Amino acid sequence: VKRALLTGASGFIGAHAPAALLARGFEVHAVGRGEPLLGVHWHRADLHDSVDLLARVQPTHVLHLAWFVDHGLFWNSLENLRWLATSVRMLGELRGARAVFAGTCAEYDWSESGRRHESSSRLAPATLYGVSKDALRRTGEAVTRDFAWGRLFFPYGPGEPAQRLVPTVARGVLAGRPVPCSSGTQVRDYIHAADAAGAFVALLDSDVTGAVNIGSGEAVSVGELAMAVARAAGDTSLVRLGELPDRAAEPEEIVADVTRLRDEVGFAPTLTLTEGVADTVAWWREQ
Amino acid sequence: VKRALLTGASGFIGAHAPAALLARGFEVHAVGRGEPLLGVHWHRADLHDSVDLLARVQPTHVLHLAWFVDHGLFWNSLENLRWLATSVRMLGELRGARAVFAGTCAEYDWSESGRRHESSSRLAPATLYGVSKDALRRTGEAVTRDFAWGRLFFPYGPGEPAQRLVPTVARGVLAGRPVPCSSGTQVRDYIHAADAAGAFVALLDSDVTGAVNIGSGEAVSVGELAMAVARAAGDTSLVRLGELPDRAAEPEEIVADVTRLRDEVGFAPTLTLTEGVADTVAWWREQ
Repeated sequence: VKRALLTGASGFIGAHAPAALLARGFEVHAVGRGEPLLGVHWHRADLHDSVDLLARVQPTHVLHLAWFVDHGLFWNSLENLRWLATSVRMLGELRGARAVFAGTCAEYDWSESGRRHESSSRLAPATLYGVSKDALRRTGEAVTRDFAWGRLFFPYGPGEPAQRLVPTVARGVLAGRPVPCSSGTQVRDYIHAADAAGAFVALLDSDVTGAVNIGSGEAVSVGELAMAVARAAGDTSLVRLGELPDRAAEPEEIVADVTRLRDEVGFAPTLTLTEGVADTVAWWREQ
Repeated sequence: VKRALLTGASGFIGAHAPAALLARGFEVHAVGRGEPLLGVHWHRADLHDSVDLLARVQPTHVLHLAWFVDHGLFWNSLENLRWLATSVRMLGELRGARAVFAGTCAEYDWSESGRRHESSSRLAPATLYGVSKDALRRTGEAVTRDFAWGRLFFPYGPGEPAQRLVPTVARGVLAGRPVPCSSGTQVRDYIHAADAAGAFVALLDSDVTGAVNIGSGEAVSVGELAMAVARAAGDTSLVRLGELPDRAAEPEEIVADVTRLRDEVGFAPTLTLTEGVADTVAWWREQ
């Protein structure tokens, strides 16, 4: 039996993971703050106090998505240290289980341009969040050979914090309000949260080790994304690109080389950007 | 007032730190398992359960030497993860205190030769111990600017675990037994534990940041060290170099460039190898 322990099951990405795990035949144990899910052994707990769950559940697979991700705050919050410490303790409790932990594209050197490749692109995290994730990956790779690291790019989807771009545009346009934006020329790699979860689960269910980019592989400008959201919400004229100043030192291009994810893990996103944005706007319509 | 919180005060290096701290005018709070010391605020505690000591003591300076160092076991023990987690939690409790944490020459790439320089030598820890220390340093440097990292080379001195080279030779020769050794051609940087503690404390009392090698800067072969110990114990003829096979993949040369320690921190060892070895053998004579 494949028994998965999932952390962050109440989170933005993690909420989509149980379905993906069940579809691949995993017995699913989830740790989270939210409400129990059908078909899942639900451990309602604060992970910081519950690392011993690994000894009790004895998973064959561990998918660790939980982290502190409060909008804006997470980049340099000391909460990163608490999550790093707890995650390191989890590494000590694996007992041979295969582990996939969530990393971030913020491990890469954002002052460079071009597609990011897991082994040939330079790593130079510039935030405590990125440094903590980088430190965790280095430690995980030294603890066990059966360790993979999903380096997540830019997820969007239902339930995203309301201050972020997609919710801001979706809610503004749905309410008929103009939405001032910056110029939006920076290029990112966006992936729907359900596809991000699917990619993590596919990685967990593979024997691929080391860092694997989790992205769509598609280069989309911030402005294009805003316009796609506005289109799905019914009115592109309300998006006012260039009305807000650009932030200093925004990196130009952060896009994943997804060769490993596609060819080694065998995962491809199920949703196009248009479909994913439509799904997200539909969710906001119902809030 | 300069108030230092010292961890590992019962340890091999740490035992020498209180005197060095007191000599530099620090009010000293120490955490350790051993017996209280005169002139020191002694907190007898397991550090893993006592990270909140930082909030209670409110040190201006933190010297963190504690780690799992059981002879032979520490290189790849999962205890490294527990110490990494606890140390990361300490980073979250500094509240602006200056911090010096203990690193290791095992962060360097041991497959290379030549003197190790803090910024120009390649880092490539090959053990969980080295990786955990490396991860801690990266995290510490991202948390606070007032952070220094003492990269300790090869300490020896009173109280060293009995299975290690210096105690083995000292006890053997003092007992009149022959001591079979390997060829002993590998070159290391040895520093007396009291000088190592003195260097850490000097670093703590300076405003130097980043990694600083803690060594003597002297290249001494393992065989030379064994002979020096035997000489201090009264009979060099009992040391049988080459009677034991050399371990595979022993690195040839691990010696510190001590420019930063000497010129920036302003520290020089107080003991020559001959003096340090004499002190150590005298200690074994009394056991």
